[in-house]
Amino acid sequence: MSDGSADTRTEIMEATYRALCEQGYADLTMQDIADEVGKSKSLLHYHFDTKEDLLVAFIGFLIEEFEEKRGENAAEPADVRLREFVDWFVFSPEDDRAAFHIALLELRSQAPFTEAYREQLVRSDELVRETIVGIVEDGIESGVFRADADPDAISRLVFATMDGARIRQATLAEDGYAAAVRDALYDHVLSDLVVSE
Amino acid sequence: MSDGSADTRTEIMEATYRALCEQGYADLTMQDIADEVGKSKSLLHYHFDTKEDLLVAFIGFLIEEFEEKRGENAAEPADVRLREFVDWFVFSPEDDRAAFHIALLELRSQAPFTEAYREQLVRSDELVRETIVGIVEDGIESGVFRADADPDAISRLVFATMDGARIRQATLAEDGYAAAVRDALYDHVLSDLVVSE
Repeated sequence: MSDGSADTRTEIMEATYRALCEQGYADLTMQDIADEVGKSKSLLHYHFDTKEDLLVAFIGFLIEEFEEKRGENAAEPADVRLREFVDWFVFSPEDDRAAFHIALLELRSQAPFTEAYREQLVRSDELVRETIVGIVEDGIESGVFRADADPDAISRLVFATMDGARIRQATLAEDGYAAAVRDALYDHVLSDLVVSE
Repeated sequence: MSDGSADTRTEIMEATYRALCEQGYADLTMQDIADEVGKSKSLLHYHFDTKEDLLVAFIGFLIEEFEEKRGENAAEPADVRLREFVDWFVFSPEDDRAAFHIALLELRSQAPFTEAYREQLVRSDELVRETIVGIVEDGIESGVFRADADPDAISRLVFATMDGARIRQATLAEDGYAAAVRDALYDHVLSDLVVSE
């Protein structure tokens, strides 16, 4: 942001979230976002040249939010943190996250053609994977998880599984799908990580 | 198809596959598909009123292809069939399936707004899940898999995981991602199903 105003930036980012939920990605215009912020389109263009620039910043905003959020439960034991992390992918039909994930999926499908999106999504991907690796490593170190657990493999598995589950629930409007996949993941993978008393 | 010609139908469906790989979904026109078939746009419109109708038929074509393919290895032991099924989600960077999965992802992100897409995708989803359930049930019956294996849970887990892996590889252009997830799935879930000698 060129004027350094954190408030304006946050306002624009939150408006972008709402506009994506309402309009989806493909049909979204700078005017829609300006309307949602309640400011002029020229003010929006003062901060971002194009819709693409704005959305690159928006993915950056999501990444920052994720970083903040993941610090919140740092004092909890690793098995609790892992559960909370996995639960974060599960949403209910009333949640506006279904609409948001659809918009995000549209944006993700543009990543092969828009290098700036791809770079941000790779950053986001790495951050999520590192977060899971960190939780599993902490769990091994603190004796909550088995010493022979493989943090990289667990991280890949948890992320691909819950991302796939979330996408299927959002696109097929199938309530409870992500929760059912989470339960299968607990029963077949995560419960096996925990050292039994 | 109103003229009952299976050849014309197959030609149009194969041309649609190629056109989706080249153009993606959003920018695809009936003209692009007509050009790819090497026939006139009016001939295409004789068979399908709209691009949406054509793509609904195209998902139906993919479902038929899947049904044919899944019959091919019916005589193999269940553990071999499960491996082959999971491997089917893994593709190399040279494969045109990366481009195809991107186009399919665009189409999937339209499912909440286009009921006819959603219905076909739900059919496809159910077919894939039933296929995995069938393999696991056969494996239990034939003594290859543990008697306490849960076919529904395994089916959900395998499908969500490999779908998520495939999407991440295609959108982030990350070679080997799906293969790495598959390996983690084998090590942490599927190897545990098999009754040891």
